[in-house]
Amino acid sequence: MFHHSAKLQYKVSVDKPDPLFAKYLQQAIGGIEGEIRVAMQYFFQAMGARGDSKYRDLLMMTATEELSHIEFLGHAVALNLEGAPISEQEKAAEDPIVNAILGGMNPRHILSSGLSAMPVNSNGVPFDMSHVYATGNIATDMLANVTAESGGRVLASRLYNMTDDAGMKDMLSFLIARDTMHQQQWLAVIEELGGMEKQLPIPNTTPEDHEALEHSYYFLNTSLDEPTPEGRWTEGKSLDGRSEFTVVEKPEPLGQKPDLGKARPGTGAQKAQVG
Amino acid sequence: MFHHSAKLQYKVSVDKPDPLFAKYLQQAIGGIEGEIRVAMQYFFQAMGARGDSKYRDLLMMTATEELSHIEFLGHAVALNLEGAPISEQEKAAEDPIVNAILGGMNPRHILSSGLSAMPVNSNGVPFDMSHVYATGNIATDMLANVTAESGGRVLASRLYNMTDDAGMKDMLSFLIARDTMHQQQWLAVIEELGGMEKQLPIPNTTPEDHEALEHSYYFLNTSLDEPTPEGRWTEGKSLDGRSEFTVVEKPEPLGQKPDLGKARPGTGAQKAQVG
Amino acid sequence: MFHHSAKLQYKVSVDKPDPLFAKYLQQAIGGIEGEIRVAMQYFFQAMGARGDSKYRDLLMMTATEELSHIEFLGHAVALNLEGAPISEQEKAAEDPIVNAILGGMNPRHILSSGLSAMPVNSNGVPFDMSHVYATGNIATDMLANVTAESGGRVLASRLYNMTDDAGMKDMLSFLIARDTMHQQQWLAVIEELGGMEKQLPIPNTTPEDHEALEHSYYFLNTSLDEPTPEGRWTEGKSLDGRSEFTVVEKPEPLGQKPDLGKARPGTGAQKAQVG
Amino acid sequence: MFHHSAKLQYKVSVDKPDPLFAKYLQQAIGGIEGEIRVAMQYFFQAMGARGDSKYRDLLMMTATEELSHIEFLGHAVALNLEGAPISEQEKAAEDPIVNAILGGMNPRHILSSGLSAMPVNSNGVPFDMSHVYATGNIATDMLANVTAESGGRVLASRLYNMTDDAGMKDMLSFLIARDTMHQQQWLAVIEELGGMEKQLPIPNTTPEDHEALEHSYYFLNTSLDEPTPEGRWTEGKSLDGRSEFTVVEKPEPLGQKPDLGKARPGTGAQKAQVG
Amino acid sequence: MFHHSAKLQYKVSVDKPDPLFAKYLQQAIGGIEGEIRVAMQYFFQAMGARGDSKYRDLLMMTATEELSHIEFLGHAVALNLEGAPISEQEKAAEDPIVNAILGGMNPRHILSSGLSAMPVNSNGVPFDMSHVYATGNIATDMLANVTAESGGRVLASRLYNMTDDAGMKDMLSFLIARDTMHQQQWLAVIEELGGMEKQLPIPNTTPEDHEALEHSYYFLNTSLDEPTPEGRWTEGKSLDGRSEFTVVEKPEPLGQKPDLGKARPGTGAQKAQVG
Amino acid sequence: MFHHSAKLQYKVSVDKPDPLFAKYLQQAIGGIEGEIRVAMQYFFQAMGARGDSKYRDLLMMTATEELSHIEFLGHAVALNLEGAPISEQEKAAEDPIVNAILGGMNPRHILSSGLSAMPVNSNGVPFDMSHVYATGNIATDMLANVTAESGGRVLASRLYNMTDDAGMKDMLSFLIARDTMHQQQWLAVIEELGGMEKQLPIPNTTPEDHEALEHSYYFLNTSLDEPTPEGRWTEGKSLDGRSEFTVVEKPEPLGQKPDLGKARPGTGAQKAQVG
Repeated sequence: MFHHSAKLQYKVSVDKPDPLFAKYLQQAIGGIEGEIRVAMQYFFQAMGARGDSKYRDLLMMTATEELSHIEFLGHAVALNLEGAPISEQEKAAEDPIVNAILGGMNPRHILSSGLSAMPVNSNGVPFDMSHVYATGNIATDMLANVTAESGGRVLASRLYNMTDDAGMKDMLSFLIARDTMHQQQWLAVIEELGGMEKQLPIPNTTPEDHEALEHSYYFLNTSLDEPTPEGRWTEGKSLDGRSEFTVVEKPEPLGQKPDLGKARPGTGAQKAQVG
Repeated sequence: MFHHSAKLQYKVSVDKPDPLFAKYLQQAIGGIEGEIRVAMQYFFQAMGARGDSKYRDLLMMTATEELSHIEFLGHAVALNLEGAPISEQEKAAEDPIVNAILGGMNPRHILSSGLSAMPVNSNGVPFDMSHVYATGNIATDMLANVTAESGGRVLASRLYNMTDDAGMKDMLSFLIARDTMHQQQWLAVIEELGGMEKQLPIPNTTPEDHEALEHSYYFLNTSLDEPTPEGRWTEGKSLDGRSEFTVVEKPEPLGQKPDLGKARPGTGAQKAQVG
Repeated sequence: MFHHSAKLQYKVSVDKPDPLFAKYLQQAIGGIEGEIRVAMQYFFQAMGARGDSKYRDLLMMTATEELSHIEFLGHAVALNLEGAPISEQEKAAEDPIVNAILGGMNPRHILSSGLSAMPVNSNGVPFDMSHVYATGNIATDMLANVTAESGGRVLASRLYNMTDDAGMKDMLSFLIARDTMHQQQWLAVIEELGGMEKQLPIPNTTPEDHEALEHSYYFLNTSLDEPTPEGRWTEGKSLDGRSEFTVVEKPEPLGQKPDLGKARPGTGAQKAQVG
Repeated sequence: MFHHSAKLQYKVSVDKPDPLFAKYLQQAIGGIEGEIRVAMQYFFQAMGARGDSKYRDLLMMTATEELSHIEFLGHAVALNLEGAPISEQEKAAEDPIVNAILGGMNPRHILSSGLSAMPVNSNGVPFDMSHVYATGNIATDMLANVTAESGGRVLASRLYNMTDDAGMKDMLSFLIARDTMHQQQWLAVIEELGGMEKQLPIPNTTPEDHEALEHSYYFLNTSLDEPTPEGRWTEGKSLDGRSEFTVVEKPEPLGQKPDLGKARPGTGAQKAQVG
Repeated sequence: MFHHSAKLQYKVSVDKPDPLFAKYLQQAIGGIEGEIRVAMQYFFQAMGARGDSKYRDLLMMTATEELSHIEFLGHAVALNLEGAPISEQEKAAEDPIVNAILGGMNPRHILSSGLSAMPVNSNGVPFDMSHVYATGNIATDMLANVTAESGGRVLASRLYNMTDDAGMKDMLSFLIARDTMHQQQWLAVIEELGGMEKQLPIPNTTPEDHEALEHSYYFLNTSLDEPTPEGRWTEGKSLDGRSEFTVVEKPEPLGQKPDLGKARPGTGAQKAQVG
Repeated sequence: MFHHSAKLQYKVSVDKPDPLFAKYLQQAIGGIEGEIRVAMQYFFQAMGARGDSKYRDLLMMTATEELSHIEFLGHAVALNLEGAPISEQEKAAEDPIVNAILGGMNPRHILSSGLSAMPVNSNGVPFDMSHVYATGNIATDMLANVTAESGGRVLASRLYNMTDDAGMKDMLSFLIARDTMHQQQWLAVIEELGGMEKQLPIPNTTPEDHEALEHSYYFLNTSLDEPTPEGRWTEGKSLDGRSEFTVVEKPEPLGQKPDLGKARPGTGAQKAQVG
């Protein structure tokens, strides 16, 4: 069950409101790298967690934190929209700076939300929940979470560079810090479970006779003219310790040429396909 | 530039067509765990790759392989739809097995595609390209790729369990094998770049003074009644070697209670908000 | 800032797991009538609330409650998926009941989530955040909220009818009760603000000279052959007390026939359009 | 059955074409507050209307009017795009006003539609029909309609403020007027049906024993530190006349801590989850 | 401006309601081959029509007819849902036919719409307006329309085969007939404009010096092992009369190997990419 | 099976990077008129092709070419983003040109992709695979393909006009040329199959007794006040040679007034609807 405190998890101040930066910040709320995504992803992973219940707790606790991130970012968007233009005046139409602001800001910040945050990204595209990755496989889910936090920290760093506002920089430095921790805590789960080698291949419960092992350890160079990029993936022991990496170049197809034959009458095809 | 061979990368045969399994297989084509996603994800990562060009090559070569996976899966769907019911007959209406098939199969396999594969998942929801994760940050992208291949192998293993058809099991065992390799090759890139510790935190180019380091290494227990789940993430050296993990329990808010004040006249609010 | 308790807001038990009912319950999680929607809608309205701050508090408190509803519904879905078929066996293929279950359940409950809840509706369509209605106008938002809770209680009542499971009926009776309260609390806000008459027309800050008042109070019968449906909307004082309702039948167009003329050269039109 | 007149329902003129305003107007066509939405919502509600047939007629007549609104707004968009830049010239590249226009307008107005309206919102996001709310419950549907018309009038008022064009202001004043009427006509239906008290709780056909009445009339203060916002919703007779409002503060969870136990073998989990 | 008659364009009767067929029929309402699509496509093309105004009229008249098709199909869906199961009873749970119906029908026909039509396809995916193709180029638009009507007639024919209901077959035979006409009327526009040869290449206003004509008339065989499929496209005069068709086999790339160099500092890349 | 060459199909150079043009080019990658769409459309049509296998080959070969188009366009986007602003500096904030660029460019080119291409259109809306039209009917599919290539060439021509960059103009002239060929090759398939008359009506396998032929050849003038637009579609032999075109003006409805009666108890309706 959830509860709430009236204060924000972190302080938010904006020295000089910037409607364009409000648009950018939306990426951290409703983008695929944003906070709605991680809040909901950890929440749904927690609800589906099976096995040691401490991972469910871990997920739910951080889901709860991410909800608080949405909240202070939403406040930051609204503060950046303070004083934004809400009417077109003759004078403004000739001021290139005002024109650039009007052209550049998200029009729905004026037209739809009345100068506050929306659950959309920086293009105004609403977040959709298909991005909530929760598979029931703990290793996959932890990797999805590290990925999400990496994308999140990349985004927060880029946003940090896009503003000169001290308040915004301070808030973003907090987000950058929390993303640092969250990257590591999901990786720490994998370490606790015995490390990556023990988790691979994921899922590690797939019986070996369900796998065509002769195809499991070669890198396939599908290029006609480019040499194989040499690296850890082309030689040496496989990361799961089961085999050695090799390379297959200029591969021949192993299958047949597909042929579906004629169309059945009654399937809405043309005569030429049935005949 | 791309080229094509007429034969499939791997052989596809179906002993006993099963329209319901055709629906399930769609998840491996147009699901977020599916082949369109990885093909396009590696393709777009390759097109945006900066730094050592061998990673671009690696990405493009595997993108090309994934396109071939779409192709043989698409053929498998069509073969599973051979002989599917295309008309309702009085007799069928009373045969519970036929009814279950008609009720259970994707109606668009009859109505829209004429008994062949579509770029949709097992619910018939079309794949959308927002799931192509490509950030320009190689560590994030590699993690996104391991995640995708882990989800893919989980899915292929589940599909393997859902069929008794020898041909389908054989094809899926090939997919399971290739996903094994692909998981490892993306992790091997991280290993080549010096291992995870060196890559963390991601991005590792964010200047330290952009980060509120005092918030970077504590686990936040946001629960009111649950003890902190102890683990690698609550004590010991942080995974990036920069600090030690600690815990903050029952955290107090660090920010203010938000207050946006009154609405501006002319913003479409109610009088009660402006007044 | 958000916090969490380990226990659910309301108890959840399932006497006889039913994978088909798990699919139905998804509508209450990820449907437009569901809990993600109201949780996020109240959350975003709260973040954008201007005017008397008590409405912000009210919204945030109920947003928090709705998050708890997602949580117990998610648990209910998982419990209904206990024991669901995860492999196709020859015998099952001939058992019409098992076939009906396999055909009827959401395949992604097996293939994608590993027998747990997803943020999708009963068709497997992911929730998308465009359904988070938050306008910055308090009367509009309150009406949107009553609407959402009405749709929610309609749904919960229909779900109640679709199950014989005592545990599920008990849980749904709690949801039905809370939706009762939530319908009323949003209407009570309107009453507090002076009642509907005072709020109309919404927004009530639009200056009268922005409105073509001669078109504000007639019902337009656009039918060629049907008499005007008589009612409160065709006569008597208007609900905002500003005028009297009238009727316009078989209306004549008030505008011109549109004509965009020829296409400009260089706009990618055909010669016939430019010439 | 539908019919058409060649002339527009209302006259449209644009004194000074403005491609940026064309983008804004799209919100009134393809936004969730726009005319496609209400046209389709009333249309589908009409097709599903059960009970007194006069409500079906009412809905269909207004659906028909809304189609006419799409039409004149579409013409307004095209007129605002007259003369928009369709080629990049060296000179323009250095004119900040032209640059602001090019940067600010919807590029698809040039690239995709050839200077005419599209069924998208002001961010260029296509309208999707999930926003057509039609539940088969007349009270819910009427509330959804008042909500839609309130959002519509808020939007039209904001658009009115964003333009100085006399023709556009005139057209919008007509829209504002019709939204006034439509808000009231849907509320008038509720009044005709006996008023809100008689309609509550919605649906009013849910048997009382399907409802956990002990949870139906308290406001839940989920905040840890904020006092309950006092108001009509915390005391006095409930709006449906069935009970009295009360408050529950700092609520204790009523349910169990969820525990799904271990994962079943064969579900694609990791060994650590199954073991 | 639009008007309405109370009666349907065509009579609708259902002898034996079939909830599964109701689901199928949704494809003809909200599918990409359905009536909402063509109604809106012709409507938006009409609103953007430039050149001879008779094409605008033609488009608007048929748009209006398609709205009437939505209407009678919507009624057909509702009639097919008459008597559909709305509660789960112990007995039903053991009746495989009832189970197959419950598993096969769209659950939202029970849960969301209350036994009536929705603007979704047969998978329950809502129609989205990105499928309204309107380019401002009359030849492209006419081809898009023939395509839509061809897909529509394919669908109607498939639906005809999926029912034994005489009323439904009669209604569908009307749809099949109207699609016949609509296919031809859009092709007739092209014939009137001088036929396909004169319209090609589309757009026919593109200046020839904007086109690399040396690449305009060869078929590119991108296969490594398959001979060129010979046909009208490999030899003879081009269809626009400007050139002769030829073939290029096993093509060599004409471009460079792409190389984006290192990542710029400050773009959120990893050190390895910048260094 | 697919293969790859390291070089691009066509050379790409950008003389003067232009982040705004990078945004426009996205329409040619991820727009409905773009290359992902045709690549995937031909690919899925090929996988479902029944009848003479040479059409499968033709489709697959051109699908492969379109993948190469995505590749060089993706490179063009990245080159146009070279040097784009990635940080906000005080000075820039006062330079209207820089402001216009920042306001006009896709913010996700900075925030999400790190200055490279994304699978989105020029509004930043991700491509979704519902636009892959593949029906199993060869005539419908060929028409869909001509339509797609016509939209593609319209788009490429418009893009050509929007840039002054010689490298970009050269690349676009290649795209314009290939779209010329592709338009014709799909039309040539129809010619090979006997021409349009023989293919009509589509599908030409629908038995004549499935069609209400008395409704197949009249143009329906649904306007109340506009004369029938005369043309090839109002008189003369029908294009399939089966009949003569006629006109029906001011049509009377052929169906009944719909009436669904009262709502069933237990369906979540209001008392007023059931009573």
